[in-house]
Amino acid sequence: MIEICEVGPRDGLQTEATILSIEKRVEIICRLSSLGIKKIECVSFVRDDMMPQMAGAEQIMELLPTVPGVRYAGLVLSASGMNRALFLEKLTEIHVAVAASDAFNEKNVGRTTWDTLTRLSSPIKEALESGKKVRATVATAFGCPYEGKIALKRVLEMIEFYLNLGDCGIALADTTGLANPRQVSQIVREITNRFPGVCLSLHFHNTRGLGLANVLAGIQAGVSRFDSSIGGLGGCPYAPQAVGNVCTEDLVNMCEAMGIETGINLEGLIETAKWVEHQLQHKLDGLVMKAGPIKG
Amino acid sequence: MIEICEVGPRDGLQTEATILSIEKRVEIICRLSSLGIKKIECVSFVRDDMMPQMAGAEQIMELLPTVPGVRYAGLVLSASGMNRALFLEKLTEIHVAVAASDAFNEKNVGRTTWDTLTRLSSPIKEALESGKKVRATVATAFGCPYEGKIALKRVLEMIEFYLNLGDCGIALADTTGLANPRQVSQIVREITNRFPGVCLSLHFHNTRGLGLANVLAGIQAGVSRFDSSIGGLGGCPYAPQAVGNVCTEDLVNMCEAMGIETGINLEGLIETAKWVEHQLQHKLDGLVMKAGPIKG
Repeated sequence: MIEICEVGPRDGLQTEATILSIEKRVEIICRLSSLGIKKIECVSFVRDDMMPQMAGAEQIMELLPTVPGVRYAGLVLSASGMNRALFLEKLTEIHVAVAASDAFNEKNVGRTTWDTLTRLSSPIKEALESGKKVRATVATAFGCPYEGKIALKRVLEMIEFYLNLGDCGIALADTTGLANPRQVSQIVREITNRFPGVCLSLHFHNTRGLGLANVLAGIQAGVSRFDSSIGGLGGCPYAPQAVGNVCTEDLVNMCEAMGIETGINLEGLIETAKWVEHQLQHKLDGLVMKAGPIKG
Repeated sequence: MIEICEVGPRDGLQTEATILSIEKRVEIICRLSSLGIKKIECVSFVRDDMMPQMAGAEQIMELLPTVPGVRYAGLVLSASGMNRALFLEKLTEIHVAVAASDAFNEKNVGRTTWDTLTRLSSPIKEALESGKKVRATVATAFGCPYEGKIALKRVLEMIEFYLNLGDCGIALADTTGLANPRQVSQIVREITNRFPGVCLSLHFHNTRGLGLANVLAGIQAGVSRFDSSIGGLGGCPYAPQAVGNVCTEDLVNMCEAMGIETGINLEGLIETAKWVEHQLQHKLDGLVMKAGPIKG
């Protein structure tokens, strides 16, 4: 059994040229939550003027129905973002992300890695104390487009920092699609040796076609939590090199064909991917939505 | 070290709407052979009127230069095709393919699997006696769009049939992209247990995004020979569900990032993929040609 965290409504839509209405974004999340997906990253607490695609996190959370067994998560990158997130009762999981690469983190939030971590430590503790779950991400964990290789030591230090704040889940994100399967095996084994019992998620992009191969390596190394986005959302129609997240339908198709349960309705996912494609008015990257699932 | 057989000039171009001239097809092969690719499937011995994209196999072979260390292969589906192939000195390897699925084979060549195998047995023996290498493929080995699952027993019987004819290499082809990594592991282990020392190649399509994950499973199971096509050629611009072969650059990028040697010039491949894209006047599926390679 693997658990998929659907990140299309956040990591996917945030790079789209088309800005969907609050109602459409709520509809996407509702369609997804009806298909057996247990966790959805719904919103991002960034400034509306900085990222209009993600505007209205509070309204989205207000409109979302409570669905038994479905958890809603939101992305927090700063203390002010955390202040907004902590007000929202239906948002039970906080995703925090800091890049292991200083250069990347500075481009993203204007501060170094350790500066950002330090500033986030009180907000993370506050979130945990308020009863929210926190998943703390090491972004660019597998490589950085500016700095190149990321030292494993740095990834381990960041995880240690997070775990010292309390009972956080940990995620490794391959933010720009630089991971390879051998590296995934090595890093996962290193982390699970060093931090036994860690609740580890992997977040891959399919930038160089390695998304599912990296998930496979993760599964083989014992990981059971993966992020993916409906239709492979997260590419940018105006930047053909920016391929999106691992595609949810393609991932579910792989797992089900391999006999690994996901609890997710694959035919429903395909329908939803086509519906999202229609809303965005451009072709999505997902392949199973075009070719159909492997039938056992 | 893995060996890649480049099949773009055959499996790739045969489904293209644009029919390239003999000279362009020769140029593609020459560009590829200059990049460290050691084996190229260059031609198909089908009737010119049935598949104009592949017309002129004899002219192609006549025009190709002999390149030290580079082997040229051609696809043979019938006794008459073999008669043509055996005349061509520069064609040192014959690829024969028969589908494990009767339904698929009948649609493809109008005969059942066993009828086709029987008719090909003398031609295969003749090829081996004439000093050509023969690689015999079990097509639809991982599943058939008409028949569904293919019994492992049938795949093993076909391999046994081929090996009884002489010292053939064996290939398993996932003709319509139905393989999954667990199945790849299982079938490969079964074959290598049953036929120790067999020279096994794997041929995957990326129809459902599993191309590289399936190659990874093959590598893990000990296979070192894979087919792929430059730019991921083999899709059809007018049938968006028909995604092509595993993409050569994407495969080389994965291997090199994992520390597995290919002996192939990746930057040169990317340039060549862009050049082929320009010749065909439509976007190819390859991702590394868009995003650039993973840099170690």
